[in-house]
Amino acid sequence: MNVSEIGEFGLIERLAKAVGADRPESLIVGIGDDAAAWRLGDSLVLATTDSLVEGVHFLPERTPWVDLGWKALAVNVSDIAAMGGDPLFALVTLALPPDTPVENVDGLYAGMQECGREYGVTVVGGDVVRASQVMISVAVIGHADLGADGQAQLMRRDAAKAGFVIAVTGSLGDSAAGLKRLKEGAPADDALVRAHLRPQPPLATGRQAARLEVPCAIDVSDGLLQDLRHVCDLCELGAVVRADAVPLSQQLRSAFTAEEALALACGGGEDYQLVFIAPQETMRLLRASAQVRVTVIGEMDEHPEQRPRLMDASGVEIKLPEAGWDHLRA
Amino acid sequence: MNVSEIGEFGLIERLAKAVGADRPESLIVGIGDDAAAWRLGDSLVLATTDSLVEGVHFLPERTPWVDLGWKALAVNVSDIAAMGGDPLFALVTLALPPDTPVENVDGLYAGMQECGREYGVTVVGGDVVRASQVMISVAVIGHADLGADGQAQLMRRDAAKAGFVIAVTGSLGDSAAGLKRLKEGAPADDALVRAHLRPQPPLATGRQAARLEVPCAIDVSDGLLQDLRHVCDLCELGAVVRADAVPLSQQLRSAFTAEEALALACGGGEDYQLVFIAPQETMRLLRASAQVRVTVIGEMDEHPEQRPRLMDASGVEIKLPEAGWDHLRA
Repeated sequence: MNVSEIGEFGLIERLAKAVGADRPESLIVGIGDDAAAWRLGDSLVLATTDSLVEGVHFLPERTPWVDLGWKALAVNVSDIAAMGGDPLFALVTLALPPDTPVENVDGLYAGMQECGREYGVTVVGGDVVRASQVMISVAVIGHADLGADGQAQLMRRDAAKAGFVIAVTGSLGDSAAGLKRLKEGAPADDALVRAHLRPQPPLATGRQAARLEVPCAIDVSDGLLQDLRHVCDLCELGAVVRADAVPLSQQLRSAFTAEEALALACGGGEDYQLVFIAPQETMRLLRASAQVRVTVIGEMDEHPEQRPRLMDASGVEIKLPEAGWDHLRA
Repeated sequence: MNVSEIGEFGLIERLAKAVGADRPESLIVGIGDDAAAWRLGDSLVLATTDSLVEGVHFLPERTPWVDLGWKALAVNVSDIAAMGGDPLFALVTLALPPDTPVENVDGLYAGMQECGREYGVTVVGGDVVRASQVMISVAVIGHADLGADGQAQLMRRDAAKAGFVIAVTGSLGDSAAGLKRLKEGAPADDALVRAHLRPQPPLATGRQAARLEVPCAIDVSDGLLQDLRHVCDLCELGAVVRADAVPLSQQLRSAFTAEEALALACGGGEDYQLVFIAPQETMRLLRASAQVRVTVIGEMDEHPEQRPRLMDASGVEIKLPEAGWDHLRA
C-alpha cells in the first residue's frame, strides 16, 4: 500500500496514533485541530505549520513570488485565527532548486514581510535547503488568552453540539474562482485572482469570537463542506447548510452562473475565512461586534450518518460535483 | 544571480534583513542563532526548524526510515540544547511522493517517537504534502529558564569573549566517518554508521551549562571549524583549536589514519555535539558536573582576521582540505 491510497488525512491520523502515547499534562490541543495548544507558565502557546509546494499548491508560472510569500504566512495565520489566538513569530523553511534567481527569493521575503506587518508576525528563524522543487514550509507560534476562570479561551473543532448555529466570515468561493481564472490566463490583479493569491484571514474576528466564548471554529482551507465534515466527524454530529444563505461576493456572482458559484463556494477551498459554530445567543453577540460580516448559514444536528448536507430553499439536498481537496490523493 | 551563488547563509542573512525591521520587544534572540527565543508571560519560548531532504541530507537507498525519523527530530533537539533550553513539542511536515509505501512512513513515525521519548518531545501537529522528493521538515518549540535576576538563562552564539576557553562534548568525527562508510556499503549497525544515523544531542549537559551561566554555545552541525567560524564572525574574534586536544573516539582512530580522523572531526559535521565557550572557571564547574565528557580544545582570541585556526602540538597551523558544508552550494 502506498501513501496515495490512504491520503493526507489517513497519514496524519497514523502520526497522531504513533506519537500520542505519552501526552504531557500541559498539552491542551494536539494533532487534529487547526493548531496545537499548550500551557507554559501562566500563558498559552499555539503552534501550527503549513506548506506550499510548487505544482501542488501553486502554479509556478502564474504565481508572483511576492504573493507566494504573503500566502505562505497567511495560511498559518488563518490556523491561529481559527483557534482564537494571536500569531507572534514564524519559522520559514525554503526548499529551492539551486538555479532559483535570488530576486525571486527577495520577492518571497518581501511578501512575507508585508503579511507579517499586517498580522503582527515576525520571522525569527529560517532554514534554506536544496531541492528539485520549490517548497515553502512555515511554522507559526502564537499565544491565546486564559479566561478569568483560568480556562483556555480557545475554539476547538471538537466542541460543536447539536443545535449550535453555523456562521462564516466574509464570502466564499472567490479563491477557487480566482484559481480557475488564473489557470485560464487572467492577470494577477484580477479581483478574484487577488482573493486566491492574497488570502486575508479575519484574525481580529477570531480573537473576538474566542473572547465571546464561541466554542468551535475551523478555517475554510479544504472547502466549506469538507471542513465542516472534519467538525462533524470529530463531534459525531451532522450539519445542514442552507445554499441560499452561503455568502457570495458580487464579483463571483457576476463572473459565474449561480450553480458554478455555489459549487466554488462550498467545495472550492482556500478561502481562509472562519467558520464559527456556537449557541444562537453567542453568535448574535459575535455578529453584532465583529469587524467583518458574519453570516449564519446553517446548524449542527444529530444526524452524523449524513455528514454535512447542502439544502436548497425548499429543503431538497443539493449534491455538488466536488468534495474538497486531499493533497496526496489529488 | 541564482541562489547557489550566494549560498544558504547568504539567503538566511537576506531573510534576516528583510524581516528584521519591526523587532518586537519580547524577542530576545532572532535569526542567526541555533534557535529563536522570546518572552511570553513569565516564561521563555524557544523555537527552531531543520529539514532533511532526500539526496541532499540523506541517502535514500541506505538510510532506514526509522533512523530518518529519529534524526529529523534529533537535529532540532540539538538546536534547543545549544541554547540551554528544553524541547517540548514538535510540528512535522512530510513531503512525500505519492508512491511512497505506507510502511516507510510508519517507520519514520516510529523513529520520531523513539527520539521524542528519549528527549521528552511530543509531536503536536503535522502537515503531509505531495512532492517529487522526500523531505522531512521539523519545527521544535521548547522553553528555557529565567534566572533569579529575571534574565534569560540562554547560551548565545554572539556572547564569546577573547580569553574564553572552548570545549566540546563527547567526541567528533564519528558521524562524518559513518557517512563515508555508509556510502561504501557498510551496514546500518556499524558503530560509526550509527553515530551518523542516530545523533544523540547531549541535552542535559546543555541545560546544565545554561544553569552555570556558560554564555556561549553552538551545536556541531556544519563541522567544528565552520561552526566556530559562525561564532568568530558574530563576535569579531578569532579562535585557536589545538589539534591534539580534539576528542576522537577509539572506533574512529582505529578505522582511519590520524590525518583522516582529524579532518573528519574538524570538518566533517553532523556530530550534534555541543561546543561551549566560557570563562575558564565556569568551564571547570561545567566539566566537573556534566553528565558527558567535556573536553577543552582551545580558546578565543582577538585575531578575527585569521578565523578559527587549527594548531599542531608545536604551534604550527594545520590546513584541512574540507571547510564545512553549505547545502545550496554543495
